[in-house]
Amino acid sequence: MNSTYKFLRTLTSPDDVVFKVSSAVNVAFETVERDTLSSLGYVSAEDVVSTKDFPPYNRSAVDGFAVKAEDVSDASTTNPVVLKIKGFMHTSDPPEKYVIGHGECVEVTTGAPLPIGADAVVMAEHARKVSEGEVEILKPVAMWDNVSLKGEDVKKDQVIVRKGEVIRPWHIGLLATLNIAKVKVYRKPVASVLGVGDELVPLGSDVNSGKIVSSTMYLVKAFLEELGVNVPYIEIVPDNLQVIRDKVAFYLSKVDFVFTTGGTSVGLKDFTVEAVKSLGPEVFIRGVAIKPGRPLAVAVINGKPVFMLSGYPVAAYTELLAIFEPIYYRLYGSRSPPKPKVKGKLVRRVYVEPGVRGYVRVRVFRRNGEVFVEPLITTGSGILSTLIVGNGILVVPEELEGYDEGDTVEVILTNPIIEEA
Amino acid sequence: MNSTYKFLRTLTSPDDVVFKVSSAVNVAFETVERDTLSSLGYVSAEDVVSTKDFPPYNRSAVDGFAVKAEDVSDASTTNPVVLKIKGFMHTSDPPEKYVIGHGECVEVTTGAPLPIGADAVVMAEHARKVSEGEVEILKPVAMWDNVSLKGEDVKKDQVIVRKGEVIRPWHIGLLATLNIAKVKVYRKPVASVLGVGDELVPLGSDVNSGKIVSSTMYLVKAFLEELGVNVPYIEIVPDNLQVIRDKVAFYLSKVDFVFTTGGTSVGLKDFTVEAVKSLGPEVFIRGVAIKPGRPLAVAVINGKPVFMLSGYPVAAYTELLAIFEPIYYRLYGSRSPPKPKVKGKLVRRVYVEPGVRGYVRVRVFRRNGEVFVEPLITTGSGILSTLIVGNGILVVPEELEGYDEGDTVEVILTNPIIEEA
Repeated sequence: MNSTYKFLRTLTSPDDVVFKVSSAVNVAFETVERDTLSSLGYVSAEDVVSTKDFPPYNRSAVDGFAVKAEDVSDASTTNPVVLKIKGFMHTSDPPEKYVIGHGECVEVTTGAPLPIGADAVVMAEHARKVSEGEVEILKPVAMWDNVSLKGEDVKKDQVIVRKGEVIRPWHIGLLATLNIAKVKVYRKPVASVLGVGDELVPLGSDVNSGKIVSSTMYLVKAFLEELGVNVPYIEIVPDNLQVIRDKVAFYLSKVDFVFTTGGTSVGLKDFTVEAVKSLGPEVFIRGVAIKPGRPLAVAVINGKPVFMLSGYPVAAYTELLAIFEPIYYRLYGSRSPPKPKVKGKLVRRVYVEPGVRGYVRVRVFRRNGEVFVEPLITTGSGILSTLIVGNGILVVPEELEGYDEGDTVEVILTNPIIEEA
Repeated sequence: MNSTYKFLRTLTSPDDVVFKVSSAVNVAFETVERDTLSSLGYVSAEDVVSTKDFPPYNRSAVDGFAVKAEDVSDASTTNPVVLKIKGFMHTSDPPEKYVIGHGECVEVTTGAPLPIGADAVVMAEHARKVSEGEVEILKPVAMWDNVSLKGEDVKKDQVIVRKGEVIRPWHIGLLATLNIAKVKVYRKPVASVLGVGDELVPLGSDVNSGKIVSSTMYLVKAFLEELGVNVPYIEIVPDNLQVIRDKVAFYLSKVDFVFTTGGTSVGLKDFTVEAVKSLGPEVFIRGVAIKPGRPLAVAVINGKPVFMLSGYPVAAYTELLAIFEPIYYRLYGSRSPPKPKVKGKLVRRVYVEPGVRGYVRVRVFRRNGEVFVEPLITTGSGILSTLIVGNGILVVPEELEGYDEGDTVEVILTNPIIEEA
C-alpha cells in the first residue's frame, strides 16, 4: 500500500492533463444535417456563411415619410415644407412600388422598404398630415437618417455561426432571418458511466447494512447531460478486475467516452485502474494536482478516453469540472462557456497545499451591500451537501497556498448570492 | 399617429412591470411526480427533506487501521505501538462485522464503516504491517481523526432541495445518496408564439420581394426552450385585428403564456395591441423604460400573461431578458440564476437617455492582460448580428445617463472573452 501512496505523490498538473488527453483523443464526431429550428444546443460543424446582404434593401427604421433629404433641408415648425404623398408602403411591399421625385414622399411603416428615389425618412412626430395627399415636414433630416441600410446587419459572405460554436437562440434568429433552413452540426457525443463497487446498488433498491446507492454514477450522468452528452448506459460493476476490464472494453466499442466512479482511491480492493491499464492505453495518467479529486486517473485507448473518477460525489464533480469539461470543449475546437462569477471578501482563511489547484466550496452572501465569501468546513471529499448549502466554488491556483481572511477573491457562483438582513 | 407616440412617452419602469405582472398572473403549474433520475432541469414543487442521517454510521475517510485513539497516544516511529489485526472491513461490510477491544484494530478501506469500539483511523502510511495479524502504529491520532461522522453530510430532517429550485446534478447526487427515487416537480410551462405580420413567411419558404422570414418568432421560441418552457405552438398571423384576437383567445385557452412578435411599434397597420386590449385584460401595460424594447406591451387576461414583443429580434431578445425572465422565475417563487459577468474598461462613451434602462451590446476583449469593453455601434434594434459579433451586454441602470470612456463597467458575458494579441 505504501508504494501506491508514493505513486500518487507524483501529480500531473490539471493543464497538462487537459492538454495531453485532448491531444491524444481521436473520436470521430460525425456531421449530421439538422433543421435549423431543431438545432438549439448542438455544436455547429461548419462556418455558416451568409449568402446575401441583410436587410436585402434599404428599409425605414421608423414610422414616417420617406423623402429626398435635400427637399426638406430648410424645414421647420414655423416654415414647414409641404410634400405630396404618393402613397403608403408597408413592410410587405416591394421597393419598386413607388418612385419619388422632388416634392414627393411616401408614407412608410417601420421596416418598409424605401421607395426608389428616397434617401431618408422623417419621423411621423416631425410631420403633420394636412390631407390624404399632403404632409407638412417640420424638421430637416440628413441623408440616410432613420434608414437601415442594405447589408447593415449581415453582409454577404459574413460568417454567422462559427464551426465549434454551440447554437444559441440568437444564432437561430439570424439563420432564420437569412432563410437558412438546414445546418450541419456534430452528432451529440455518447458516454457510459460505470459505478464500480461491491457495496453499490441502484437507486430505489432495498438498502441493507453495508449497501449504498451508486449516487456518484447518477451525479456524473446528470453533469454530462447538462453539458449536452447523451448517456444511454449506466451500470453497476462489482470489484472484480476481469469484469471491470470486460465492461470497459465493451463500452469502448460502443461509446465516445467511458467514465468509471470508484476504485481509484488506492484501497485494497481497487481494481479499476489495474483493469484499464491492462487494456494497453496509449496515454495513462494517474494522480492530478487538484483537490478534491487527486486520485483521478485518465487513460486514452485507441483514441477514446476513459475517465476513472472518484467514488466520492464532490471529488468526482470537481474532476469533471476541472478536467473533463475543458477537454470536452477542446475536442470541438471550442472553449468552455463563461461561468457566473462574483468577487467578495473572504471571511476565513483558506489553505491549499502548494502545487495543487484547490476547489473550495463556499457560501456567498451579501450583508449591508457588501459581498462576503465563507469557505465551508469539510472533512472529506464526500460532503455532497456542501454543494447545496454552498452557492459557489473558490478556485485556488497551484502557485498559491491559499488566501487570507479579508482578501478579495473571485468565486464561481452555482446559485444566486444569498441576501442577508 | 401622434397620439400613440404621446402614449409611449409614459413608460413603466421594468421593475414595476415585473412586479405588477407577476402579482396578477395566476397560472396553475400542476405538480407531477417524476423519477429522480429524470428530474434534471425541472423545478421542485416541494421542500425535499432527508428521512435519515448520512453517512448512516461513522465511516473511515482513509485507507488504514481503525483503532481506539487512547491505545496509540504514545505511538512514534522509534516507539511503535503494536496492535492485533482482527480482520479487514470493506465499504460493503456492516459496522457489526467486528468489535475491537484494547490492543486491537481492524484494517479498513476508505468509506468502510468503523467497527464497534473504534473511534479513530490511522492512515496506512503511518502504519507498518509486520504480519497478517499484527501492525505497528507509527503516529498517534486524536479521537475521530480520519472519520466521517454519522450525519456529517446530511442530518435527518435537513432540507436538501427547496421548493422552487431547479434540480441540478448535485441535487440528483444527493437524492440518490439518500435513496429518494421520486420527486415532486412542477410540470413544464407551455407557451405559444405568434408572429404577426402580412410580410412574414415560415423558414424555408420562397422569399419573394417584400416577404421576410418570421425570424423573431423562432428566436423567441428558442429563448423560451433554453429557459425550460415547452413551445409546441408557433404560428404566423396576418395584420388583421379579428384574426389576431381570435388566435390570442384560442391560445389563452390552451397554454400558460402567449407571446406575439411584431405589431407593437405603433405603425399604421399594428393591430396586436388593439386585439389584445379588446379581450378585456385585468392588467395592461404598454411602453417599458428599456432600450431597445420600449414598445413592449404586456397584458394579463384571466390570470394568464400575454407578452406583445417587438418584431425586431434584438428588441424582442431584450424584452425577454429584462422582463419575461424575471417574471418567469418569480412565478416559481425563485430567482434568475446568476449570469456570467466580467468587469472591464470601457473604450468608448455610452449614452442612454435618463429614466430608461439600457441594454447595450458590447465586445469584450483582453489585451496585454487587461479586459476592455467596446460598445457596438447600432443604428436600430434590428441589428441581430451584434449578438454574434458581440459577446456581452452592458446594462445601464435607469438612474444613469451612461458611462464615460475609461470607466470600469460590469457586463453580462454571452460568450467567452476574446483574447487579442
